[in-house]
Amino acid sequence: MSKINFKIILNIIGFLLILEGCFMFTGVPFSLYYCGNKCYGLIISGLITLVSGGILWFFARGAQKIIGRREGYIIVSLSWIIISLFGTLPYIISGTIPDFTNAFFETISGFTTTGASILTDIEVIPKGILYWRSITQWLGGMGIIVLSIAILPLLGIGGMQLFVAEMPGITPDKLHPRITQTAKRLWMIYIFFTFIETMLLMLGGMSFFDSINHAFTTMATGGFSTQNASIANNSIFIQYVIIIFMFLAGTNFTLHYFALHLKFRNIWKNEEFRYYFFFSLGITLLVSVIWVIYGNSGTIEKTFRDALFQVVSITTTTGFVSSDYLFWPGFLWFFIFLLMFIGGSAGSTGGGIKIARHILLLKNSAVELKRSIHPHAIIPVKFNGKAVPQDIIFKVMAFFLIYITIFFTGTFVMTIVGLDFESAIGSTIATLGNIGPGIGKVGPVDNYAWIPNIGKWILSFLMLLGRLELFTVLIIFSGYFWKK
Amino acid sequence: MSKINFKIILNIIGFLLILEGCFMFTGVPFSLYYCGNKCYGLIISGLITLVSGGILWFFARGAQKIIGRREGYIIVSLSWIIISLFGTLPYIISGTIPDFTNAFFETISGFTTTGASILTDIEVIPKGILYWRSITQWLGGMGIIVLSIAILPLLGIGGMQLFVAEMPGITPDKLHPRITQTAKRLWMIYIFFTFIETMLLMLGGMSFFDSINHAFTTMATGGFSTQNASIANNSIFIQYVIIIFMFLAGTNFTLHYFALHLKFRNIWKNEEFRYYFFFSLGITLLVSVIWVIYGNSGTIEKTFRDALFQVVSITTTTGFVSSDYLFWPGFLWFFIFLLMFIGGSAGSTGGGIKIARHILLLKNSAVELKRSIHPHAIIPVKFNGKAVPQDIIFKVMAFFLIYITIFFTGTFVMTIVGLDFESAIGSTIATLGNIGPGIGKVGPVDNYAWIPNIGKWILSFLMLLGRLELFTVLIIFSGYFWKK
Repeated sequence: MSKINFKIILNIIGFLLILEGCFMFTGVPFSLYYCGNKCYGLIISGLITLVSGGILWFFARGAQKIIGRREGYIIVSLSWIIISLFGTLPYIISGTIPDFTNAFFETISGFTTTGASILTDIEVIPKGILYWRSITQWLGGMGIIVLSIAILPLLGIGGMQLFVAEMPGITPDKLHPRITQTAKRLWMIYIFFTFIETMLLMLGGMSFFDSINHAFTTMATGGFSTQNASIANNSIFIQYVIIIFMFLAGTNFTLHYFALHLKFRNIWKNEEFRYYFFFSLGITLLVSVIWVIYGNSGTIEKTFRDALFQVVSITTTTGFVSSDYLFWPGFLWFFIFLLMFIGGSAGSTGGGIKIARHILLLKNSAVELKRSIHPHAIIPVKFNGKAVPQDIIFKVMAFFLIYITIFFTGTFVMTIVGLDFESAIGSTIATLGNIGPGIGKVGPVDNYAWIPNIGKWILSFLMLLGRLELFTVLIIFSGYFWKK
Repeated sequence: MSKINFKIILNIIGFLLILEGCFMFTGVPFSLYYCGNKCYGLIISGLITLVSGGILWFFARGAQKIIGRREGYIIVSLSWIIISLFGTLPYIISGTIPDFTNAFFETISGFTTTGASILTDIEVIPKGILYWRSITQWLGGMGIIVLSIAILPLLGIGGMQLFVAEMPGITPDKLHPRITQTAKRLWMIYIFFTFIETMLLMLGGMSFFDSINHAFTTMATGGFSTQNASIANNSIFIQYVIIIFMFLAGTNFTLHYFALHLKFRNIWKNEEFRYYFFFSLGITLLVSVIWVIYGNSGTIEKTFRDALFQVVSITTTTGFVSSDYLFWPGFLWFFIFLLMFIGGSAGSTGGGIKIARHILLLKNSAVELKRSIHPHAIIPVKFNGKAVPQDIIFKVMAFFLIYITIFFTGTFVMTIVGLDFESAIGSTIATLGNIGPGIGKVGPVDNYAWIPNIGKWILSFLMLLGRLELFTVLIIFSGYFWKK
């Protein structure tokens, strides 16, 4: 194996830090407007990040533009960690979250678009800092779109190459310009949706500040809210707007590209989208009906809306809350718990296992039964009308197995840390799946502040693992990766 | 596809019922000795079963001796169900368990060697009926050995063909004589071990009745005890004897065949056995050390023995109890819970996922990381020193996925039935894994009497699914199976 090109890695991370520093400055107007001269946290943090990034970039300039497979893994994993480290500065310097562990947990929860929070009272936090908190998710979502549509398919991670159709009209064969072109187009869509959602929320009566923050965290399927009660106290109109944009954020972004070019047939031909659509609707109706049977005091509309909101919020791994599902009657909360294992669409900002993987696994299980009856027949699994190569199914299965293994191990470790059974399960899947709220004492109206520090670091690691599709991070830990 | 040969299916099931009836009679001496003329339950049940079996066998005589793949699946699934139906007779006719649902639960829990019980006070049950209860497990164990070593590898279920080495010296190519030869040899070993264990338990001071009953249920990795406190109130010697025989029962029976022919190298060359041995020992030491750190009031020996007993009992899916692990300090009970997903060795009487499958899955996960770095290299998984064909790993993965899916679905259904979260999880894995005691309200000192009837039927189905390696049962439910 050739030597790892560390210079290009540092160069790219330096560049990303410069961007991060610039984005910190974009919060300054909110600081000035809401807090006057009290809030210099963002400015100092921005300067530190900008200068650090600049120094890194400068000393690693002139690097060879060769980015191999191994460099790719390191850049992706390391950049998420380093950006999160610098992202703690606004919290620490402003004194909002003085403790480093807490600040790091909140930041990586942002950049991984998880939405798990250690804040007990959100509404007392200075607005500039709240803005930074929301934009960490928005930037994380930007990173994820490019990662899942442009980078991971090239690396062949977890079957991604199958789920994510090539962006149409992108021709360059070289890695670098191809990623750049794809990224630009997808980001335009991302920014466009964020803009539309902000407008609609303002139309529904939300303040500009709340609107833009919620638009940031919806499109990232992040789930940080600027209100203590999340979305529960908002109007029906606002709740439906957020449901629609959560759903859009959980959709493969190449499909949005088709939609904006009016190629609707391409969207309907996408099997994952069809499942995503009918699954969300079907589960919502099922939950609503069961809820009504079990005696819901509210109107049919309210029951349906609460069910739809939580089904979409959890499936897309957003994690906004309109109703505390742990207090839903009977076993309905367990229904929501199971949804935590579904995940958004491939190529969306949603985390988790992903719908496409579940489709392949279910189809393969059915086919495996047929194979047991006719062991010599070759019966392929079909996806989007085409036979899926065995090695892709293999990768998807391996992904699922490792995911489940990490889930069980994580739960076990969290019980060692001292959590009760339900909270251990809940915190593990809520972070590994990048959801935010879980079950037990990390439910929809709780937070992660009470978890011991060591537990917060473990959960931070789970967020990173889940967000980077496991392999990207795990590979770096394998001895094989570093062997000459 | 050719027509299914139903005649041979009925013929074989008739033959099995005749055997079952005969075995019911073997309990009569205990009935007479302990209860005098009170206990005619076994005799009447034996007659009914014998006559029913005889009639079935008579009318289906002269069937063509052609047993295809599909006939194999039907015979295996149907015989376990029908034998369990007739097995309820002694409970019902004697009036010990008058309720049919309860009687069926107890019987299928016996024949699947699960050991989950609806009895609240075991010691008041007439001895003849207790003997029948134990022997259902012993007969179930006999069936499982033949199924897993002789039948399932031929059907190619769940990768079994790889784990279970061919019995040496068995030559006939035809299905029927080959199964018969293998079965005879394995059963001799099974009977031999049962005999030795009975002797050793009597040597330890147990009554003949208790000894033979515990020997039956140990060798079957069943776990039915004739004492309310399971093994907790027995001497140290007896506890170690039971530990050793649980371990032996959880070992691949072809290895016992090697051992009795003094081919010890063949045993050590078996990778699954090495893992099984060192895993059991390692986990026991780990549990002991943690327990001592958390402050155990007992002696080191007692701590080690309790840990070893429960680790071996749960890993082999026996389910005997020497200490209530739900009251072990800290997170240790969760450790035991995780062991419920391990299972015994392939070709043993143990249930669950099986150690060999875990080895393959873990190795494949590690290799998958390497494959992500070098996507074009062909890196095989090795087992017993040989490269494993991809289609076997594929089958093992599919097995695991379906297992986990059934576990989650089962848990969900049990919450609908009305169980709390921990009991739903506990009852599902304890029955699907054929273990017996679970967590929550079906823990080691509890029983299944309180579960609603519908729940008992669902758990009975899970026992059957788990015991017959999922596919055998699931295949019959697929429409494809019955298509002309």
